[in-house]
Amino acid sequence: MKPKAVVLLSGGLDSAVTLAIAQSEGFSAYALSFSYGQRHVMELKSAGRIAKSLDVEKHLVLAIELGKIGGSALTDRIEVPKDRFTNQPPKEIPATYVPARNTIFLSFALGWAEVLKAETIFIGANAVDFSGYPDCRPEYIQAFETMANLATRAAVEKSIRIHIKTPLIRMSKAQIIQKGMALGVNFSLTHSCYDPSKEGISCGRCDSCMLRRKGFREAGLIDPIPYAG
Amino acid sequence: MKPKAVVLLSGGLDSAVTLAIAQSEGFSAYALSFSYGQRHVMELKSAGRIAKSLDVEKHLVLAIELGKIGGSALTDRIEVPKDRFTNQPPKEIPATYVPARNTIFLSFALGWAEVLKAETIFIGANAVDFSGYPDCRPEYIQAFETMANLATRAAVEKSIRIHIKTPLIRMSKAQIIQKGMALGVNFSLTHSCYDPSKEGISCGRCDSCMLRRKGFREAGLIDPIPYAG
Repeated sequence: MKPKAVVLLSGGLDSAVTLAIAQSEGFSAYALSFSYGQRHVMELKSAGRIAKSLDVEKHLVLAIELGKIGGSALTDRIEVPKDRFTNQPPKEIPATYVPARNTIFLSFALGWAEVLKAETIFIGANAVDFSGYPDCRPEYIQAFETMANLATRAAVEKSIRIHIKTPLIRMSKAQIIQKGMALGVNFSLTHSCYDPSKEGISCGRCDSCMLRRKGFREAGLIDPIPYAG
Repeated sequence: MKPKAVVLLSGGLDSAVTLAIAQSEGFSAYALSFSYGQRHVMELKSAGRIAKSLDVEKHLVLAIELGKIGGSALTDRIEVPKDRFTNQPPKEIPATYVPARNTIFLSFALGWAEVLKAETIFIGANAVDFSGYPDCRPEYIQAFETMANLATRAAVEKSIRIHIKTPLIRMSKAQIIQKGMALGVNFSLTHSCYDPSKEGISCGRCDSCMLRRKGFREAGLIDPIPYAG
């Protein structure tokens, strides 16, 4: 029987490639998505389509109320910053940062992994072509893994070690896209834009769009999704 | 202005005393509770009453869907174990353990703390008169704090350190009760039982009831709440 892995799946490009990598490494994938009041909630439809196209074992969507906490352009009435990647990569962490988001996501993944008896959690964190979010950095992931191995009954009673795998963390966006292509990921199913139109057209100018477009350009490939600007 | 602290408030005895301690140390308290599909959801009513009686700055209740993950007698169709503390403290972690619960709770607390610009999170974890839950042990709390200080924008940009405070962690239940008495906690507002009757009467035989009753007995005090058995 294949080992199980919980894979965090946002509906974006990175997590789709991460899911394909998990499967290519021989894991039976349990995809986990969150409805957290995100402005770009349409990413959840993408997550569902990706989960289906890659034939995951199960796709669980959990509703959490990050909007009640606020503090982010993705969950609060704060504008999504645009055109930040026009010249040099910006230095400050943008308003789209969601307080403790990856920590919250990984915590639920940890709980589900324990119930599933899975020892592996995949997250598509990337610390190269990224917005500078603190909870995408390798040292953060390492600290989460250390904590996780003290947190659960599985760790204490059965000496099961939890591994947080981040196959993309040192890759450029272009490399991620090439890897996904090689694994047959259908990028037309993915959604990246933080601030899409009502019709679901990507803005082309938020960090997430700009990093994606730069990645396709550098990879010498055509992005299959349309952009407004 | 008083410094702010997020205080995890379940509605039980320990978290009520923790809240009173946080206030006695000069913090302005932001109480955080979770509706997580717990069998003993009436503890949330208690949390509301305690928050009001201790006049917290704000009381936030977040709904999370731990029932969809399952794996616990508190969120799943698994029986609550009884009479485990009749003789010696039991060695195994009981079925009331909820996978990754404190990690999930602390993660939300971390997010809220960042939005509030609070540097302190209080949790009523106790590693003396407890059910052996791994996520109540000091080494777990320490690892969470280390991770938290790598997770947030506040930590990275402003060098704010997050402190996870566990004032009860080395206290016996009797000491906790005495401390609460000294601080004027109204224990009749608290709810501890994992498996109350429909009318809200505590069973008297689950771990939580047995530890509470033993604590009042050892403290030489009368528990103001009624028990079924």
